[in-house]
Amino acid sequence: MADQAFVTLATNDNYSKGAMVLGKSLRNHKTSRKLVALIGPHVTEPAREVLRKIYDEVRLVDVLDSGDTAHLALMKRPDLGVTFTKLHCWTLTHYSKCVFMDADTLALANVDELFDREELSAAPDPGWPDCFNSGVFVFRPSNETYGKLIQRCTENGSFDGGDQGVLNSFFSNWATQDIAKHLPFIYNLSSIAIYSYLPAFKQYGGDAKVVHFLGKMKPWNYSYDAKSRTVKGDSQDQSTLHPSYLLQWWDIYSSVVLPLMKEHYGNQPF
Amino acid sequence: MADQAFVTLATNDNYSKGAMVLGKSLRNHKTSRKLVALIGPHVTEPAREVLRKIYDEVRLVDVLDSGDTAHLALMKRPDLGVTFTKLHCWTLTHYSKCVFMDADTLALANVDELFDREELSAAPDPGWPDCFNSGVFVFRPSNETYGKLIQRCTENGSFDGGDQGVLNSFFSNWATQDIAKHLPFIYNLSSIAIYSYLPAFKQYGGDAKVVHFLGKMKPWNYSYDAKSRTVKGDSQDQSTLHPSYLLQWWDIYSSVVLPLMKEHYGNQPF
Ligand SMILES: O=c1ccn([C@@H]2O[C@H](COP(=O)(O)OP(=O)(O)O)[C@@H](O)[C@H]2O)c(=O)[nH]1
Ligand SMILES: O=c1ccn([C@@H]2O[C@H](COP(=O)(O)OP(=O)(O)O)[C@@H](O)[C@H]2O)c(=O)[nH]1
Ligand SMILES: [Mn+2]
Ligand SMILES: [Mn+2]
Repeated sequence: MADQAFVTLATNDNYSKGAMVLGKSLRNHKTSRKLVALIGPHVTEPAREVLRKIYDEVRLVDVLDSGDTAHLALMKRPDLGVTFTKLHCWTLTHYSKCVFMDADTLALANVDELFDREELSAAPDPGWPDCFNSGVFVFRPSNETYGKLIQRCTENGSFDGGDQGVLNSFFSNWATQDIAKHLPFIYNLSSIAIYSYLPAFKQYGGDAKVVHFLGKMKPWNYSYDAKSRTVKGDSQDQSTLHPSYLLQWWDIYSSVVLPLMKEHYGNQPF
Repeated sequence: MADQAFVTLATNDNYSKGAMVLGKSLRNHKTSRKLVALIGPHVTEPAREVLRKIYDEVRLVDVLDSGDTAHLALMKRPDLGVTFTKLHCWTLTHYSKCVFMDADTLALANVDELFDREELSAAPDPGWPDCFNSGVFVFRPSNETYGKLIQRCTENGSFDGGDQGVLNSFFSNWATQDIAKHLPFIYNLSSIAIYSYLPAFKQYGGDAKVVHFLGKMKPWNYSYDAKSRTVKGDSQDQSTLHPSYLLQWWDIYSSVVLPLMKEHYGNQPF
């Protein structure tokens, strides 16, 4: 399956940490597919080195920014304009099919079966469930599609200022056309869903395959005590309700990623 | 279409107010279907009188309670055990097809097209979007199905302590089997979705057909100033973000329902 790949994106060193853990989690679960990281020019050289250790391909792309502060303000996420950069994934035409995964996702199991699905397959967004969440999706690289997507961004912008708005407008029949394009929610389990319907999480959460640390507070924003194996963060933050996923992230980060980073960053802080 | 009906449920006078407004909203939008209200024994006589003015059929059912305080506590909704009573709707076998609507829903348009759908059609729940929300669903009355549902309740209980848990376990392939059974989210627009993904609400909310005042705070818990046409409530409550739906509810309540109630309750408080 050399012509199929998991793809992620990191425009800076913080999201690169996420990409490193994600890549490692896919390897741990013995994926048979290639791993590709798209990076922006601000990712520093040592971070690129580490990414190259984990990913088969690390590709530099230019940063696309919606610049749409008005819509982004509605979500209180002024930082998400750069997620337009994600659209570059359609240019990976040396692959026939790919699965995009946000850098803030973590594979809890082998998820190679996602490649059985067609473009555009994705899981529902818990905020507005007739939209798909663009943190995990199956797509077919194509310069034609890429061109159309960029054209749409230029002409219509994005209703949320980020990639999810554009992608939902473009693949606008996702909600109504084909159930096979609805990935089960356990392939993109947003941490937010855990506390918004706790009984459902207790019922179905055990089958989770990919967890998505959606929202402002990312795993790398917490601090970790390696000795006691505990994660500390803003105690107001609801994510404290899902400590086990966060611990799994930190487990990979501290045991595999951190040693690689120490090696490549040397005395530089990270 | 005399053999098709909208069905709701009220086990007490408060939810009856909701049922009255819902029934009126369906009539205002000129539904061609029958209207049925299932009521519990605690609904007082004057409330029954008012319901009879609005509904074609007001049917007394006994209250079924899950008694499952443990699961209900997970949702902080100890009151929802009685929603098992909803299952009685399957006994309405003098209708060939029905649409159940929670008493806390409001029709914003004619929604008779829902009868084109098959059992069990429902919209995704924003909390866990591979579950359907049981506030609006299409079903076929059947004593056989009713029997199986009750059996399931007795044997397995409900993963959330309420009707939604049982119904999702029973119609367990809803998420994966047939896209036609996924009602568009605008047929069960939970007020909670408005603030959880505001840009999507701004993009798609204008097409809303049914709003669902899901959660603890119901329209009848607010207070209304008829002169200034403003609604007052717990200012901490997020529902203050969707004042226009709340105003539409109160508009019907104060202009149509309240006069009927005054007539039938006389000097009794309500
Ligand atoms: O400054 C940024 C913001 C986002 N991203 C990428 O875009 C994705 C989507 O952003 P994010 O995960 O923060 O959005 P959320 O899932 O919280 O809505 C991230 O996972 C990264 O892959 C990035 O590289 N740099
Ligand atoms: O004490 C109650 C609680 C609920 N219900 C009925 O069960 C439905 C579901 O409960 P609710 O709407 O409160 O649940 P939510 O939609 O907030 O989860 C209500 O709309 C009513 O039709 C009722 O009659 N009496
Ligand atoms: Mn993300
Ligand atoms: Mn309800």
